[in-house]
Amino acid sequence: MAEVVFINCFEVPAGREQVFLELWHQIDDHMRAQPGYRWVRLHRSLDPAATFRYVNVAGWDSAEQHSAGHDEKFHRLLAQEAWQEFPSLPSVYTVEVADQA
Amino acid sequence: MAEVVFINCFEVPAGREQVFLELWHQIDDHMRAQPGYRWVRLHRSLDPAATFRYVNVAGWDSAEQHSAGHDEKFHRLLAQEAWQEFPSLPSVYTVEVADQA
Repeated sequence: MAEVVFINCFEVPAGREQVFLELWHQIDDHMRAQPGYRWVRLHRSLDPAATFRYVNVAGWDSAEQHSAGHDEKFHRLLAQEAWQEFPSLPSVYTVEVADQA
Repeated sequence: MAEVVFINCFEVPAGREQVFLELWHQIDDHMRAQPGYRWVRLHRSLDPAATFRYVNVAGWDSAEQHSAGHDEKFHRLLAQEAWQEFPSLPSVYTVEVADQA
């Protein structure tokens, strides 16, 4: 089964990294327990002025399983007011090119 | 040496995918030949309405080597007028969390 990759780009104000990370781990812990979750890498920008300070990249078995993971508990976690500080742009991708040096 | 990850999010209008991919491969071929380049994955969104239709994620040995790859030839490739159709948000990241299911 071809892997799909969920990518979510986050805006995180300087000094708010720990608040963001705590919220992010809540949701990642939940998603990690769902069927089809394969792996995750959370990236932090070296440039503090980057538009997207954090980028989440996660492999799933299928778009259907990724979608199914967005259950009632997920929506409850995401509905926390603290998330409003961290706008994000999530989408699901297929790997079009994969190469190594 | 800790890997750094270059992430670049691209806006690509519907129907312009082939033009984008041709330009992207020109620059990727150039970067792949530079010291420190490790791997690349280019992602295409399953949702045609996603803000970022393509996301480039590439591993490098160091931020310095990634920076050095942006030489005169790179800037000549990027200066092509055709690139103006594809706004992008590039930045260099460190991997803050890496986990597997």
